[in-house]
Amino acid sequence: MSQSSATPEPRCEARRRQILDAAAACFAREGFHGASIAKISKAAEMSSGHIYHFFENKEAIIAALVERKLEQSLTMVQQFEHADDVHQAMQERVDIGVNERTDLDYAALELEILAEAARNPRVAAIVQTADAAKRERLRRLLVSARGAPSGDEAAATEIIMALFDGLASRAISNPGLDRNALLAPLQAALRALT
Amino acid sequence: MSQSSATPEPRCEARRRQILDAAAACFAREGFHGASIAKISKAAEMSSGHIYHFFENKEAIIAALVERKLEQSLTMVQQFEHADDVHQAMQERVDIGVNERTDLDYAALELEILAEAARNPRVAAIVQTADAAKRERLRRLLVSARGAPSGDEAAATEIIMALFDGLASRAISNPGLDRNALLAPLQAALRALT
Repeated sequence: MSQSSATPEPRCEARRRQILDAAAACFAREGFHGASIAKISKAAEMSSGHIYHFFENKEAIIAALVERKLEQSLTMVQQFEHADDVHQAMQERVDIGVNERTDLDYAALELEILAEAARNPRVAAIVQTADAAKRERLRRLLVSARGAPSGDEAAATEIIMALFDGLASRAISNPGLDRNALLAPLQAALRALT
Repeated sequence: MSQSSATPEPRCEARRRQILDAAAACFAREGFHGASIAKISKAAEMSSGHIYHFFENKEAIIAALVERKLEQSLTMVQQFEHADDVHQAMQERVDIGVNERTDLDYAALELEILAEAARNPRVAAIVQTADAAKRERLRRLLVSARGAPSGDEAAATEIIMALFDGLASRAISNPGLDRNALLAPLQAALRALT
């Protein structure tokens, strides 16, 4: 019964990813309510039954998407934790954050999940649990990077997160956004916060 | 025929505001698609016919809400323009920005409009036109505040806007957000950008 082990089979994992990618595109394009399981199943090119085999409902899909994004964020934080110079590592990788957050598909999905969280307590709980995990890991990074913690690391972490969260809004609000030009002022703001 | 003059009658203006307030609450609570004209008319305590007398459709209501918010933003920018010391005035009023942006109703509406803009070209055009007006006015303020412009004012303006736009995301993502604690790091980031 190796197929029932905790580690998913590679094929299973690939199918799960295929559903999440299709659902992410549907949520961004049609909104959480507009994206039915039927539409997601069409976009993923598999039956609704297959989707329900992996996910109980749309909220479970949102939970998996938020979890996947959290893992990516924590991988990035881990790279900073292992850097010789945390400040320098953060400065050097600002472009990765800008490119990710201002990607229109990313921004659309991010904003749709937040808008849904604002009115749906179950989605709010998913978003807030992931956010707390990321926030605490970033706060600890900041404490360690500063050497002499000043006690306002939690608040500084919030403002750093606001900076990057806000980039999604900028991408939607300004179609002519000059991404490269953003790096220098973003680095200056980060220096003031780290 | 004084009622057909360009300046709306006070009673007219009050009814229009009543519709906008009801629509803002409905959009935040039910999303743009969930908030039908019937629901908005119920929340505004007037007939659908009355709503259609003022607004052709839901997008026209969004346009009026975005326009109203733009006017409030430009009023704030104007206060900065008339301040003796622009930097000091911006630092002193950071709390107003924080309280406004992290208000849960404000944040929900803001995120819902942006999420809708990401998938609806007509709403995108409304949002982007207002954003361009605000952005240009802020950029000019920054040029004048700096005395010796460095040429990156457009990018610095984007990052300042990202900072404040991102506060809406923070309010939804962290229900325990400590608003007062945010002021000091936000002021530090602003100093680095202005």
